Amino acid sequence: MSERTGSRVSRRTLIGGAVATGAAATGVAAAATMEQEQPFETAQRPVPERRPNFLIVLGDDLGWGDLSSYGAPTIRTPHLDRLAASGVRFTNGYSASSVCSPTRFGLYTGRYPGRLHGGLGEPLAEKNDVDGIPTDHPTLASLLKGVGYETAMLGKWHCGFLPSFSPTRVGWDEFFGNFGGAVDYFSKIDTSGIHDLYEGEVEAEDLRYYTHALTERAVEYIARPREHPWLLNLNFTTPHWPWEGPQDRAVSEDLTRRVVNGDGLLAHFDGGSLGVYRSMVEDLDRSVGRVLAALDHGGQIHDTVVLFASDNGGERFSYVWPFTGGKYTLNEGGIRVPTILSWPGTLPRGRVSHEPVITMDWTATIVELAGARPDEEHPFDGTSLVPYLLRGQALPERPLFWRMHDWRALRAGTLKYLQTDDGSDHLYDLSADQHEQADLVDLRPDDLDRLRAAWEKIAGDQLPYD
Amino acid sequence: MSERTGSRVSRRTLIGGAVATGAAATGVAAAATMEQEQPFETAQRPVPERRPNFLIVLGDDLGWGDLSSYGAPTIRTPHLDRLAASGVRFTNGYSASSVCSPTRFGLYTGRYPGRLHGGLGEPLAEKNDVDGIPTDHPTLASLLKGVGYETAMLGKWHCGFLPSFSPTRVGWDEFFGNFGGAVDYFSKIDTSGIHDLYEGEVEAEDLRYYTHALTERAVEYIARPREHPWLLNLNFTTPHWPWEGPQDRAVSEDLTRRVVNGDGLLAHFDGGSLGVYRSMVEDLDRSVGRVLAALDHGGQIHDTVVLFASDNGGERFSYVWPFTGGKYTLNEGGIRVPTILSWPGTLPRGRVSHEPVITMDWTATIVELAGARPDEEHPFDGTSLVPYLLRGQALPERPLFWRMHDWRALRAGTLKYLQTDDGSDHLYDLSADQHEQADLVDLRPDDLDRLRAAWEKIAGDQLPYD
Repeated sequence: MSERTGSRVSRRTLIGGAVATGAAATGVAAAATMEQEQPFETAQRPVPERRPNFLIVLGDDLGWGDLSSYGAPTIRTPHLDRLAASGVRFTNGYSASSVCSPTRFGLYTGRYPGRLHGGLGEPLAEKNDVDGIPTDHPTLASLLKGVGYETAMLGKWHCGFLPSFSPTRVGWDEFFGNFGGAVDYFSKIDTSGIHDLYEGEVEAEDLRYYTHALTERAVEYIARPREHPWLLNLNFTTPHWPWEGPQDRAVSEDLTRRVVNGDGLLAHFDGGSLGVYRSMVEDLDRSVGRVLAALDHGGQIHDTVVLFASDNGGERFSYVWPFTGGKYTLNEGGIRVPTILSWPGTLPRGRVSHEPVITMDWTATIVELAGARPDEEHPFDGTSLVPYLLRGQALPERPLFWRMHDWRALRAGTLKYLQTDDGSDHLYDLSADQHEQADLVDLRPDDLDRLRAAWEKIAGDQLPYD
Repeated sequence: MSERTGSRVSRRTLIGGAVATGAAATGVAAAATMEQEQPFETAQRPVPERRPNFLIVLGDDLGWGDLSSYGAPTIRTPHLDRLAASGVRFTNGYSASSVCSPTRFGLYTGRYPGRLHGGLGEPLAEKNDVDGIPTDHPTLASLLKGVGYETAMLGKWHCGFLPSFSPTRVGWDEFFGNFGGAVDYFSKIDTSGIHDLYEGEVEAEDLRYYTHALTERAVEYIARPREHPWLLNLNFTTPHWPWEGPQDRAVSEDLTRRVVNGDGLLAHFDGGSLGVYRSMVEDLDRSVGRVLAALDHGGQIHDTVVLFASDNGGERFSYVWPFTGGKYTLNEGGIRVPTILSWPGTLPRGRVSHEPVITMDWTATIVELAGARPDEEHPFDGTSLVPYLLRGQALPERPLFWRMHDWRALRAGTLKYLQTDDGSDHLYDLSADQHEQADLVDLRPDDLDRLRAAWEKIAGDQLPYD
């Protein structure tokens, strides 16, 4: 009786097989949203004369199903759901990696994280002069700055530490945030108990709940009178650990004391609950609502492309159904993330797209929409979605690729090649089995060989792991 | 950066803290059901003069959230939901074990599985003359038979193999089903490729979809004219692997050929999907509906206590939110199961109970309701719920206990002691954290010691593992 453990699931029968890869991946709670949604169809769309602003809002460790529009059973996210209803909700949106910093390397550079040594960190932790985005390296911000954009980053950077690396050295005019992977929401200490909050490169103090501090900064940034279009990276740490909602200052005080005394971990393995997690995500949602209201109030909502996504799949309190796995794995639960694009007046409202897209695509897309060009020495690994979004063209077929120290994945069409951390190869057909349980590795050896070879070809061009 | 993997969750904030342990464990899909539900309150209830029939319907590997009334996002189970609405839905219903056969030892004997060697199997697999329920051992069926009940078992037995063990030797008048843990839904081969379907102790052939064959037998059994009350154990194998819905005869033919040729496993690791799984559970639901209709049609619905439960938590395609873990683990996802009790006319309708109850309790309850008594040499480890259900008495506080070869668990109040298969101890407060992520092991050492000692005391009275 060779039984084996397992526990989580797609409901393709509900929706029917045709668009199963995308549509099936949404729960009942999402059904209400879906009923209103029309499939996004590529078509020629009038491009506004004025170049848009770009607001990129990143959640941190937010899982695929943590928003009501993506199926959350109890968390309610009306503002993000409304953002989705104002534009396009992607059901096959992927993060560049399954951990925090590599995805950010991908977003900021438009290239595979494995092209820079710092991008190999899972996540980046060492403070040295190697692991970061070099000051002469082009970024999303520097490319936009080069064509006249004002740029700012608020929140988590996580692509290299001072004194060697900083967002303000690679294209962001302004930075207010933390350099590392996580800070306490109130005290702003990092995992080592060291204070990590900066204004540019100068240490700053702000004891407000971090999500709120960032939100107020974003509102202020958006409201400024200016002549140039702008790019704002608003990188919340919500809902990353520690498990502290806006009411949990006492939890923060206790945890901070313990971390500073070496008597506890900021990762907070002895805290949190689904209730606290819900309060964090719903606070994130309200915060995004405030930022969107600022855009609306200032009359910029029609001139601003808003992208909302997460840096990786869900952590311990996340909801990732119908997927399996989570942060640190390359199962769908580790890399499929809520992905919303809104550009009222230019993109249609209330659409859903089942096209597979990945972090670096957004870099290429934004650079093209801004009228900039990628650096010839540093070509994008992402594909601009502009032909798909605005010019009536289909997205080209291309494999999506992920590489971690102990995991591999490649998606080609609906097939997914996965190598797990025990070194074993797997093959799944996501059109039938997004839950990744029916391993076709023995039944379809030719497909396995083909996808594995494609993986090795792409990986061969990247930096080795230490 | 000591981050760690994790992925799944309670929504106590939705419901409020008071009944968090129970009420919180239900999703939005369950909300509709819950809105109609009233808390079950213990009270004196008129006991009918006529002793009831007992229909025990067991699902196999059915996970906690696989019914719509328990939160399933897409599976629809109107018949089982209606059964719940006709009686009491338990939100803290537990199986005796996290795998198939030990729970059945618990149900049939009313005692911890670890009191018989066969109950130590995870699950029982060896065909020998030791591992089973001995012919002189009292069972639920023999005790009821002793007070005049007719008894039958349809479906999976899984408590010992021929020639030494059989349900008809320990109290069931009739048996039609399989002796082992799983059979193909059409061919009725077991994991070794050997045919396993019997009428009593005689091999039988029936190539119909197993769920349907059992359902027709149950309908026939219920419809028989008779003078005595009856006990029917209706042990479906649905939705246990192999992954075959009623339309999947071709899948069965392919898989059967492969298993018989030694070229595939009945566990079907290369098949199935959430869609197929949904078709299996919804077919189970319709089948239960047919059985209940037979009870209604025959006018026996008011004289029959119906218990529906699962033998353990969810397997790979199951939905166990807000729990973590699944079959083979002692996390809540491995042992919390849908548990419904209906006795129209005697028990109130539309109730929900958050009392922690476990498989062996049902044995004790049914024996008491039948007017029988446990055997003095084989006292029950379960607690009769009759005082709670019919006599206005509170359930006594008692620890719930689970023991597996590599896992331990004990629940006392809302605290849960867990030892996982790496030998590490954990402590969770289920009132806040049903998701079992906030490990209080270092914060509450005294509680840990207390619960661990309670576990060891109970375990000390049971058979050793080999």
